[in-house]
Amino acid sequence: MEQTNIKTWAECAPRLVAVAAGRAPADRVIQNGQWVNVHTREILPNHDIAIASGRIAFVGPDASHCIGPETDVTQADGRFMIPGLCDAHMHIESGMLTPAEFARAVIPHGTTSMFTDPHEIANVLGLHGVRMMHDEALMQPINIFTQMPSCAPSAPGLETTGYEISPNDVAEAMHWPGIIGLGEMMNFPGVINADPKMLAEIAATQAAGKTVGGHYASPDLGPNFAAYVAGGPADDHEGTCEADAIARVRQGMRSMMRLGSAWYDVETQITAVTEKGLDPRNFILCTDDCHSGTLVNDGHMNRVVRHAISCGCDPVVALQMATLNTATHFGLERELGSITPGRRADIILTSDLTALPIEHVIARGMTVAIDGKGLVDCPHYDWPDAARNTVHLGRHLGASDFIIKAPAGANTVQANVIGVIENQAPTKALTATLPVENGIVEGDLKTDTCQIALVERHRATGGVTNAFVSGFGYVGDMAMASTVAHDSHHMIVVGTSRENMALAANRLGDVGGGVVVFKDGEELALVELPIAGLMSDRPATEVAEKAQAMMNAMQDCGCSLNNAYMQHSLLALVVIPELRISDLGLVDVRSFEKIDLLKGTT
Amino acid sequence: MEQTNIKTWAECAPRLVAVAAGRAPADRVIQNGQWVNVHTREILPNHDIAIASGRIAFVGPDASHCIGPETDVTQADGRFMIPGLCDAHMHIESGMLTPAEFARAVIPHGTTSMFTDPHEIANVLGLHGVRMMHDEALMQPINIFTQMPSCAPSAPGLETTGYEISPNDVAEAMHWPGIIGLGEMMNFPGVINADPKMLAEIAATQAAGKTVGGHYASPDLGPNFAAYVAGGPADDHEGTCEADAIARVRQGMRSMMRLGSAWYDVETQITAVTEKGLDPRNFILCTDDCHSGTLVNDGHMNRVVRHAISCGCDPVVALQMATLNTATHFGLERELGSITPGRRADIILTSDLTALPIEHVIARGMTVAIDGKGLVDCPHYDWPDAARNTVHLGRHLGASDFIIKAPAGANTVQANVIGVIENQAPTKALTATLPVENGIVEGDLKTDTCQIALVERHRATGGVTNAFVSGFGYVGDMAMASTVAHDSHHMIVVGTSRENMALAANRLGDVGGGVVVFKDGEELALVELPIAGLMSDRPATEVAEKAQAMMNAMQDCGCSLNNAYMQHSLLALVVIPELRISDLGLVDVRSFEKIDLLKGTT
Repeated sequence: MEQTNIKTWAECAPRLVAVAAGRAPADRVIQNGQWVNVHTREILPNHDIAIASGRIAFVGPDASHCIGPETDVTQADGRFMIPGLCDAHMHIESGMLTPAEFARAVIPHGTTSMFTDPHEIANVLGLHGVRMMHDEALMQPINIFTQMPSCAPSAPGLETTGYEISPNDVAEAMHWPGIIGLGEMMNFPGVINADPKMLAEIAATQAAGKTVGGHYASPDLGPNFAAYVAGGPADDHEGTCEADAIARVRQGMRSMMRLGSAWYDVETQITAVTEKGLDPRNFILCTDDCHSGTLVNDGHMNRVVRHAISCGCDPVVALQMATLNTATHFGLERELGSITPGRRADIILTSDLTALPIEHVIARGMTVAIDGKGLVDCPHYDWPDAARNTVHLGRHLGASDFIIKAPAGANTVQANVIGVIENQAPTKALTATLPVENGIVEGDLKTDTCQIALVERHRATGGVTNAFVSGFGYVGDMAMASTVAHDSHHMIVVGTSRENMALAANRLGDVGGGVVVFKDGEELALVELPIAGLMSDRPATEVAEKAQAMMNAMQDCGCSLNNAYMQHSLLALVVIPELRISDLGLVDVRSFEKIDLLKGTT
Repeated sequence: MEQTNIKTWAECAPRLVAVAAGRAPADRVIQNGQWVNVHTREILPNHDIAIASGRIAFVGPDASHCIGPETDVTQADGRFMIPGLCDAHMHIESGMLTPAEFARAVIPHGTTSMFTDPHEIANVLGLHGVRMMHDEALMQPINIFTQMPSCAPSAPGLETTGYEISPNDVAEAMHWPGIIGLGEMMNFPGVINADPKMLAEIAATQAAGKTVGGHYASPDLGPNFAAYVAGGPADDHEGTCEADAIARVRQGMRSMMRLGSAWYDVETQITAVTEKGLDPRNFILCTDDCHSGTLVNDGHMNRVVRHAISCGCDPVVALQMATLNTATHFGLERELGSITPGRRADIILTSDLTALPIEHVIARGMTVAIDGKGLVDCPHYDWPDAARNTVHLGRHLGASDFIIKAPAGANTVQANVIGVIENQAPTKALTATLPVENGIVEGDLKTDTCQIALVERHRATGGVTNAFVSGFGYVGDMAMASTVAHDSHHMIVVGTSRENMALAANRLGDVGGGVVVFKDGEELALVELPIAGLMSDRPATEVAEKAQAMMNAMQDCGCSLNNAYMQHSLLALVVIPELRISDLGLVDVRSFEKIDLLKGTT
């Protein structure tokens, strides 16, 4: 599948040349705007743009020689003409939306290029899933490039994913038309230790001349960090402080600073430019993860650029960080990221470079949104049954599946309990004394301890791993289940009632995945995510509304955490300390070892 | 032929990672230097560099964990550690040296990467000649990349070259290991007019993901310039004033500012950065053409960087223009151009960032020069006879071959005369009244008019095109001949004596090409250029000495022009106005038409 709607520069060159020279009419001319030039870092008033075949043909003070009788002429009326915005690293699945619906949601915000890592679907459907994301991406009216996921499973030996990604998969994907590089190399201990599989994936990417994405999630900037850099990753978005950003750029990486729905890493790092005065060319903005609600209510890359400006960054420098810098990083500087001849005609008109209202969005020469209203079709891929039926429980679950038997004769047990920490991704490895009733270990509302189960859903093994979790604040008889369960995306069920847990799990099995909340045997909220159990092909507004209802339902059950849903969905992420659950059992992520649920009895 | 002496980053990665982490010893460690960081634009004192397998493994305040018993430790003693310098666009042939000898000449000046366009040999030996240059380039201890020549012949229909370059040649060359892009697209009228052949060469280069070199030699910055940009060239080195540089960068090209032996385009353009304050990332330094004398006496890229600094450019910004900016332009930012992990270990130690003494040069981890003295072998390609015997006159020439017969009965004739202009490449189309003696048109010392001949030397046709030239100031009986005769590189013979012209032409035929000056039947000077009639495989010092003797000989014959030899060698350049000579006759380059030598008689 080739990218639709856009021919190569070479294919268009004869016409672009003719239009620029005045021998042929442009498809479209934009008159009298302020050309925000991200190459020179200038703002040049009274400029025109001529567009032909979806690409820029001419930019100059007067494009009247490019206008013919059929040319569509748009008045910029002195507004700023800025390049369409680029999101340098992001996961579409985080929005619970398909690529098409994600595109539809962000186009009115001025995003015209996205560099997406479909890491989540890779865990569920492997290379085939990545290919489907890639193919839907190429169908869109904006530029969605795919970073080939590098780390599925994230934690080999500690979890079983739906599929695994191999170096051969990476090498194969490098030949696909929409692949731009390798997705974030999260296995940084693997790189530091010269793990042959990780280095082989990096090598395959380098051999293809593409960009190796990084993910170095550690505050250690000593030899371990140096070793990671020496392994080949070309960027990193895990920095959280100024020293992180500076260290990455000094070492020849690009620092990607993110403002996602729950990431706030721009303000703490951009001082490297705004205060320390470093050359800004190697600093880039991205979102990493945006929920649909953020897209609907707050924006996308426009939100990030505005934020960077509000942090004291010069507006044109901030725009460079979301346009030219990104394009250069991915080897696309001659293809997009600026309003100059040959590039894709991705242009935003805005009347204010600080508030950055997105008034008119042009992608590949076509108006795709005006004043927040999308005006373009975002075609859907024909997702096959294999992608829509991915929740394989193998059987109907009952309350008994969630029973944790106590050792014979025990009155109480000492149990390892996953402790959720407010506003943090790491958990605490807690120990609790839990009551035994009728030979069954029970949760304890007094210590806010309820049950958690990891329900296997890829291979229909019928497997259920039971454990305990603390910190959600749930009361009454309830259960919450989700097939968004990073990174292997089995099903995580948390509940105070085994009956409700079974209801929730079965419900997700019936609808093909999503998130559901049950209370007292009744369904309070459901977000259907039929594509791989991760995404909906419904519009972002609808998904955001259901997601909000789901979070309200969690509150109704007593949960008051700030990012309650995210906390839930990360409880199987067996790469972040301290204690997690997987299909293979309880995992101590400090030692990367499986541990027993029960420690002792009385 | 793969590049010698350097493995890919991926091949080295396991070792680089191990060295950075302290698990394996480095080959070499440089201690206690000031790290000139071209990514952040910082100078960081007290830094160490560890090198393994020719690449940077680690840079940090302390590399002692990378030192083993066999590690070679070099003390930087607080000196600046800067990346090896890059020449972004140049013609090796201009130095009259082979790639090996050119490398040997520039290594002590700190040049470790060159982007070379073997345009001259392409005119003589076609694709095969380009391949030989490319192959010798890859044998060197520094990085010599080849830009595939785009325009041979430069002026189709107005001259006959030894070989022609086709779009198929370009497409084939794009697969060679050392090809970095397309050489300067000099046929800018062709691009502006969407010439299918020129656009096909650009398309083949873009399809290979490589860089299209530009050459827009016109002061017109209107729609013609825009059309050229829309055609695809990514850089241009023909700008001569600030407005040229700014226009190029605004339009998304990179401005290459050159200081060659006879080019002085840095001072007039760098004000775009130093005074106008434009983002410097898209400005690059290059030499384009350096004579061997310049290399021996003045330097190479170190001369250009020093000059940029003397023009008011911040030293680190000037260094960026000769390192990182260049690497980024050619898609080599992860391979060279900075002192950061994974990159080729090309490093200069210097004690002064303004005077820029080149004290210690390291290429791929090896010391290659100290204090101006080269310490490395630059291997010679085994140039075959076909490359060494390229002066095919077809016969022994006599004085009679240079006779210009007058029309019957004429006493004087009106002739079109090529007028050389001091310090300029363009010529004037003059008209002179010349005497006729014994039926033969003669030159006229009173008006400084002597004979010029274009002697065909590629196909042994025996062809001699005779005409007149004015402006050299030659007196007495003399002749000067050269097989360096841009761009088709036949032989240009200029003389006041037909006997001496024949002697000079035959002499070059005997030695296989070069430059020779005869006076009164005696050879005053000879520069043998046996490789393609363009290059010597002798050391630069020897060639420079002979070239100086040749220029002295021109003076001895009465010539007082500043760049006398260059003026001579450009007289067949049928793309620069106004009047030139080719194997097809006298060419008026204002109209691109052949014209008659004689205009009338009395």
